[in-house]
Amino acid sequence: MPLYQTVAIVGPGLIGASIGLALRERGLAATVLGIGRRQVSLDAALEVGAIDRASLDVADGVADADLVILATPIRAIPALMPALAAALRPDAVLTEVASVKRSVIEMIREHLPPGRTFIPTHPMAGSERSGPRAASADLYEGAVCLFTPFPDTPEAELQRLRALWQALGARVLTLSPEDHDQAVAAVSHVPHLVAAALVAAARDEDLECAGTGFIDFTRIASGDADLWTDICRHNARAVVEATARLIETLVDAVADLVEEDYETFREFLERARERREALLAARGLIPPETP
Amino acid sequence: MPLYQTVAIVGPGLIGASIGLALRERGLAATVLGIGRRQVSLDAALEVGAIDRASLDVADGVADADLVILATPIRAIPALMPALAAALRPDAVLTEVASVKRSVIEMIREHLPPGRTFIPTHPMAGSERSGPRAASADLYEGAVCLFTPFPDTPEAELQRLRALWQALGARVLTLSPEDHDQAVAAVSHVPHLVAAALVAAARDEDLECAGTGFIDFTRIASGDADLWTDICRHNARAVVEATARLIETLVDAVADLVEEDYETFREFLERARERREALLAARGLIPPETP
Repeated sequence: MPLYQTVAIVGPGLIGASIGLALRERGLAATVLGIGRRQVSLDAALEVGAIDRASLDVADGVADADLVILATPIRAIPALMPALAAALRPDAVLTEVASVKRSVIEMIREHLPPGRTFIPTHPMAGSERSGPRAASADLYEGAVCLFTPFPDTPEAELQRLRALWQALGARVLTLSPEDHDQAVAAVSHVPHLVAAALVAAARDEDLECAGTGFIDFTRIASGDADLWTDICRHNARAVVEATARLIETLVDAVADLVEEDYETFREFLERARERREALLAARGLIPPETP
Repeated sequence: MPLYQTVAIVGPGLIGASIGLALRERGLAATVLGIGRRQVSLDAALEVGAIDRASLDVADGVADADLVILATPIRAIPALMPALAAALRPDAVLTEVASVKRSVIEMIREHLPPGRTFIPTHPMAGSERSGPRAASADLYEGAVCLFTPFPDTPEAELQRLRALWQALGARVLTLSPEDHDQAVAAVSHVPHLVAAALVAAARDEDLECAGTGFIDFTRIASGDADLWTDICRHNARAVVEATARLIETLVDAVADLVEEDYETFREFLERARERREALLAARGLIPPETP
């Protein structure tokens, strides 16, 4: 039985179209609408089967929906909100899937009439590719989906949206927007920055020697520059703080090398290894065998 | 036709046993000997088919070989060298596969009688797993193998060893030991350090939110701590310098965020993306589609 009647996905790119594909494949919505600014993107979303119908008009598309999923890049949100908020059914649930919560929640709430149900979420999955043609119904299998609800969010609506994400294969965690922004800075935004910095800091002659290991490790540096600028811009404080913690850790580690304190250096590597293995175990992933 | 008659692999762990598997599968050596300190490891190497015969005695194992491949951890080399050098046939080729060249070359050369052919190499492939049971005949397919020969290395022997690595699927590049150590610091050793530092710098509550992206990105932080301490210790200067360049790049990037100079920040990400795509293209790997 569908969890929602009509789901409107505003911005059916990689993230939105992957939700659409999974909703349709798993019968979680009676109808999935795609709303976008470019017909070519909507056509692609229709072709891959991510949506049932498409609309270039936000107000028109949103008017029928009992669930509206805002999945555009962050920079597109402010211009969209007036029309979206005006068209939103009073009984509809509005959710969004941006990688930053505090500033995005602010952007959205200032346009929402009182009494509307808005549930911010962040499914932590993605790819260095983008667009509906890169979408996959399995994108959220095994992923973490972070929820940052408000104290007055109706429990029944929270349950229903949680059921949707679980049906998409995600593990739902709830936390505050502030905690969210700090955590994802450390585990997502700063890793992205570091991958780009490793590529940028390498000299041409270093890259000549780069093997598949380096190419794999820096994969996320091929992500969309506009998208990631948006994300880091709207989470700047937490990104700067988490980068400072990383730099401090790196400085400590190389200081051990300079001081020839190899035992402390080894302990640093060993603790990191154990911590990652514990994380693998906690996620039900098997740590590598050591025969 | 085999390129070598008897190849002795000293230390048939992940790297050595993968060479053995490929040599045997591809008929590149008439006989592959494995030399190790622990019978249990040698038994594993025999079981997976990486070697034809095993020996616990370096002198005995090396005496027959026309190619000796030293594939132990760096820290085991000094103690091994006297017996190995004494047993080495005058017409044999000695090679090694360590991740560091300058200091390893020094360790080895001080024990070698004059006139012996020693060709340092570094196949850039690996895994966070270790030991012969993690070995694969395909480990070197598409990998880069760096050669740092000496001015007096006989050209014919260089050609033969190059032919071996090419037959294992690797692309051979030649450079000086100094250039090697600086390049691999930037594209291998520092990425490893960074993966460990990201895990170490994250707080427990950050790791709660870590998704598959973070787990994938930090995979190399699960590597053996002793092995990587060895590597960073013996390449300390280049690792410290490359880490400093990375930190400088990170500081510049977050400074752009602090100064709200998003255009410069975006250009930094875009340049890194383009540089990585150029690297993919240069390696014959297809860059991700952007529909």
